[in-house]
Amino acid sequence: MQVRNKAGEGAFDPVTEADRACERALRAAISAAWPEHGLYGEEFGHQPGNGLTWVIDPIDGTRGFAAGMLHWGLLLALFDGQRPIIGVLRQPFVDETFWGDGEQAGYERAGQPEPLAVRACADLSSATLATTSPDLFKPGAEAAGFAALSAQVRMTRYGGDCYHFASLAMGHVDLAVETGLKPYDIQALIPLIEGAGGQVTAWDGGDAAMGGNVLASGDPALHERALELLNSRP
Amino acid sequence: MQVRNKAGEGAFDPVTEADRACERALRAAISAAWPEHGLYGEEFGHQPGNGLTWVIDPIDGTRGFAAGMLHWGLLLALFDGQRPIIGVLRQPFVDETFWGDGEQAGYERAGQPEPLAVRACADLSSATLATTSPDLFKPGAEAAGFAALSAQVRMTRYGGDCYHFASLAMGHVDLAVETGLKPYDIQALIPLIEGAGGQVTAWDGGDAAMGGNVLASGDPALHERALELLNSRP
Repeated sequence: MQVRNKAGEGAFDPVTEADRACERALRAAISAAWPEHGLYGEEFGHQPGNGLTWVIDPIDGTRGFAAGMLHWGLLLALFDGQRPIIGVLRQPFVDETFWGDGEQAGYERAGQPEPLAVRACADLSSATLATTSPDLFKPGAEAAGFAALSAQVRMTRYGGDCYHFASLAMGHVDLAVETGLKPYDIQALIPLIEGAGGQVTAWDGGDAAMGGNVLASGDPALHERALELLNSRP
Repeated sequence: MQVRNKAGEGAFDPVTEADRACERALRAAISAAWPEHGLYGEEFGHQPGNGLTWVIDPIDGTRGFAAGMLHWGLLLALFDGQRPIIGVLRQPFVDETFWGDGEQAGYERAGQPEPLAVRACADLSSATLATTSPDLFKPGAEAAGFAALSAQVRMTRYGGDCYHFASLAMGHVDLAVETGLKPYDIQALIPLIEGAGGQVTAWDGGDAAMGGNVLASGDPALHERALELLNSRP
């Protein structure tokens, strides 16, 4: 497998050939079906359209993918200029598709569709929290906020990338937190989680569609308290 | 899904019904085939035999399993009284089997067998390190040792449980480190990793078969230097 370093020699940001090939194929297929729609992808940038834009992360979780792990997937959202109205997560190796449109959400494997729904979780002390890596939180306020939240939950799981948002939509994880996301890292997941009954915002409570620091809650009852903890200072 | 708390009310150690049902089925099948062999499993303890013992972890990575994630599996080893001589990791949801006997190792999916081999990695600065959670390292020497190693590698990945040892045997990960393992958490992985060309020891360089703090290296050239860093003091 060919791995390139997108961030230059100093940092390590692997871009696999699979990433590029996948985005290229998707852009071609979307353009053939809806030539008037815009495209915005991680690898090949923005191509403006009629106001509807397909937002593509060909492989979210590239580092996990490159490490031979399973928690990665293709993310595809349809953005109407204000918010993502359709979202899809596809894990092709495991053959799983998760989708949502903000009103409902579903899961499909081996041709068997099922509805997706978050689970109830009234209290942080019985919550499962997921994130990708402790190294994502900058020392200072971010790390302190994450530590404050992690200290209140029953269990913290690492190593999820996009997949822990899928676990939340399936009702297995109660809180998912990330920092430094790009729009294509999160847009597909918003209609998916909201369609399953959950909530997604930025850490300041605002819109998460442009990325940044993001919190998703399965049970919306947890959301405000989790935001308070994420914003608490050391 | 029924989840029990094996550690009592204070801690959270989920034991799912699936765990118990899986070990029960395996013990019955092994006893039917080899009634003279011993059994040692996570859920139902030790049953002595003729000197050959099947060592079973019905679901390694129960927390990840309970969180709807994919990095878990059944671990099965055959222990000859001194060392594990056969090891198998099975991820049934993804339909992957990894096995090894210390001399060779293989992978099978959808009936397609392939050999398994670690990759070369001459230098820590180009290594990928994997572990399950930063919370596994006790504050003090353990955490300092892990931080010292993590600081030297190119990339650290979290959330693996048994699966990151499989990624190492596949040649995608160079170092895998864990603490506080039980014999059934590691025995299956030793003949698998050694069969793929890697090395597994305790952090003191001794035998890893009884668990404890464990380091696995894909390229044995990394092993001594990684052990030095894990044993460095703050």
